[in-house]
Amino acid sequence: MLAENEFEMNHHITYYECDPRSFLTVGMMINLAVLVSGVQADHLNAGTEAANRVGGGWVITSYEINVNSLPKMGDDVVLGTRTTSYNKYFAYREFWISDHNGNEYAHINGIFVFMDLTSRKMVQIPDLMIEPYHSKSVKRMPKFGRAQELMDEDLTNQKNYRVRYFDIDANRHVNNSHYFDWMLDVLDAEFLKTHELKKMLIKYEREVRYGDTVTSQAGIDQNTGADEIITKHQILVDDGINAIANCWWNESVS
Amino acid sequence: MLAENEFEMNHHITYYECDPRSFLTVGMMINLAVLVSGVQADHLNAGTEAANRVGGGWVITSYEINVNSLPKMGDDVVLGTRTTSYNKYFAYREFWISDHNGNEYAHINGIFVFMDLTSRKMVQIPDLMIEPYHSKSVKRMPKFGRAQELMDEDLTNQKNYRVRYFDIDANRHVNNSHYFDWMLDVLDAEFLKTHELKKMLIKYEREVRYGDTVTSQAGIDQNTGADEIITKHQILVDDGINAIANCWWNESVS
Repeated sequence: MLAENEFEMNHHITYYECDPRSFLTVGMMINLAVLVSGVQADHLNAGTEAANRVGGGWVITSYEINVNSLPKMGDDVVLGTRTTSYNKYFAYREFWISDHNGNEYAHINGIFVFMDLTSRKMVQIPDLMIEPYHSKSVKRMPKFGRAQELMDEDLTNQKNYRVRYFDIDANRHVNNSHYFDWMLDVLDAEFLKTHELKKMLIKYEREVRYGDTVTSQAGIDQNTGADEIITKHQILVDDGINAIANCWWNESVS
Repeated sequence: MLAENEFEMNHHITYYECDPRSFLTVGMMINLAVLVSGVQADHLNAGTEAANRVGGGWVITSYEINVNSLPKMGDDVVLGTRTTSYNKYFAYREFWISDHNGNEYAHINGIFVFMDLTSRKMVQIPDLMIEPYHSKSVKRMPKFGRAQELMDEDLTNQKNYRVRYFDIDANRHVNNSHYFDWMLDVLDAEFLKTHELKKMLIKYEREVRYGDTVTSQAGIDQNTGADEIITKHQILVDDGINAIANCWWNESVS
């Protein structure tokens, strides 16, 4: 039984949503998370139409992603979301991908703000956009762990990526999945083939736009012990930081 | 009623499958075409497992894409495919995307060959891989129009693209949609925002691999009259041609 503030839908994992090892990519997982929240919003008449009426839109500030094991091509999964809590400026949302027995592949926490599209500034969350959700009004938001900055001396990997026309999706912003692709691609195939992502913290500072060339920088720290490897990431445009992230990896068994 | 050699499935067009104007991208349309053919194959026990048993796989040689008008975000569509005909070496397949009243958004013809995975060479299509389809055995394959080569003097647009780790999908090859992204992105946002693709011919010569830097070249010919604009395309790696294409465009009404 789902609570009033929860919503679930079924999804079949396709070949083009997966990486060469047939695991769902993290970028596509975020697309699916945003998809289920959008369907919930439409069900509650609090979707794009309502957002347009108040002249604004939700913007993600940070995600905390916890992975048990990513689903694979051909898996029939459940996409779920819960509008956990909110205060004047911030809305806290959870997402999960689970099998049909309720076992979670991954669980994602996200903190969103509401942006006025004219001023491009954060505004108080309009009642219209939050009331239908049965989310809990709180004084203080739960906080994630804080992603540590990548220091110059820890930089091990760097590549540039041009933002392409088809990186912009129907929301008319760079699709969120590309931030993950830029951040992870820089680690190179050898690393990505031999490691599994267990946790990721990502914080968005500034939007990337069409035509920008982003610099993706990463530092691989293999000295943390306990088989855990931490990578620190940042995305820059013209020396300004657009997003930072930390990832925790295990070595793959196979 | 579907014929024996036909298969259909439903699909909901999501925001991340669409471009900034909310139209399904051509690259994603090809992903959906391959998806429905894969589901048909699995239904007939002629899918990946069967292909692995004979040690080979289907490879696309060329597509002819005809567009009435692309579906948009939120549309509930039908993905269809028909195994039209085959001879010793070539299999001809049709795909369509239609609404639930049978009106086609787009129709795609594709010619496939079967490749031996050890020799990396084209081989005769194994009976196991074609018999279940009720496809028609023919002497001669229907032919598409032939894509015209881009001549040096007609080159107007050029950009380089690095092939990224997440460009490789669960089939362990560069996902087909990226060829379309590279070919079309080079035309720039201004052109893509103001034109609608009506037809595309694409011919694959040679596979692109992870780590390659592809050069996408295009020539925009605005002098064809009758409101029709033709663009010619090629994808190169180290001066060798990997794919060529021709596109026919109309100016957008809005």
